[in-house]
Amino acid sequence: MAAKRAISGLCRDWPAESAFIREVLDRIGDKWTMLVVSTLGEQSLRYSDLHASVPGISQRMLTVTLKALERDGLVTRTAYAEVPPRVEYELTDLGRSLGAAVRAMAVWAAANHEAVAASRAAHADGGVGREGARRARSRPGPVIAPAS
Amino acid sequence: MAAKRAISGLCRDWPAESAFIREVLDRIGDKWTMLVVSTLGEQSLRYSDLHASVPGISQRMLTVTLKALERDGLVTRTAYAEVPPRVEYELTDLGRSLGAAVRAMAVWAAANHEAVAASRAAHADGGVGREGARRARSRPGPVIAPAS
Repeated sequence: MAAKRAISGLCRDWPAESAFIREVLDRIGDKWTMLVVSTLGEQSLRYSDLHASVPGISQRMLTVTLKALERDGLVTRTAYAEVPPRVEYELTDLGRSLGAAVRAMAVWAAANHEAVAASRAAHADGGVGREGARRARSRPGPVIAPAS
Repeated sequence: MAAKRAISGLCRDWPAESAFIREVLDRIGDKWTMLVVSTLGEQSLRYSDLHASVPGISQRMLTVTLKALERDGLVTRTAYAEVPPRVEYELTDLGRSLGAAVRAMAVWAAANHEAVAASRAAHADGGVGREGARRARSRPGPVIAPAS
């Protein structure tokens, strides 16, 4: 009965400090982090332009996110001695190396949010499969989903 | 003085329901979600093998994560009528379509956690640049970092 455990997947070879790897993964998986890193991409942006380019982010969350990104070595902040002062943010090489992965996450979310909403609707309806999904879609309900 | 805002980056073309896209991004960016989806990859796994394959996950968090993944249509749960009962989890096509992105995130975290730790050490030291980083590395301190 004591079957041998099959250890699978990419964590198999992770070293002893995997708790810290998970902490880093938690940081880079934060939605605002992903959106700010995606938005910076190859360019440098002023705080106010960054704020305008990430829909839904508050000034507080943008400030918190940028400070964490600076601390983790993913973003640099450069202040130019002008009147009025100009501050620009840019990805470091380390930040740029994360770019493709976070962009893929954001692109997936934008492309598949309707499929996720449909699946949630089917589950909220207590049904599984198409019948449940169809019924859920055809009536209003406590479903966290955009009108489609 | 009222400069035109430069809207940049991939959110520029996001539709009105971008709040729901962000919610989906938040879900798929959860570290346990990314690790479970990465681990399932192309195979189906029993609960206990999945638990053994994701280092650090508690049974509670694995259960919560799997339920959320089922609800979002990324994972299927199949119960086999055997003695003892066997339950296996597998990615759906939608879940598999997310695989490459979350694997890239996990691989980045595993490859770059030392660089992140070094940057945090430099910041904890109050220094910026190499001098601060070197001093921080050469003495013990309240640095959240693996011994390297």
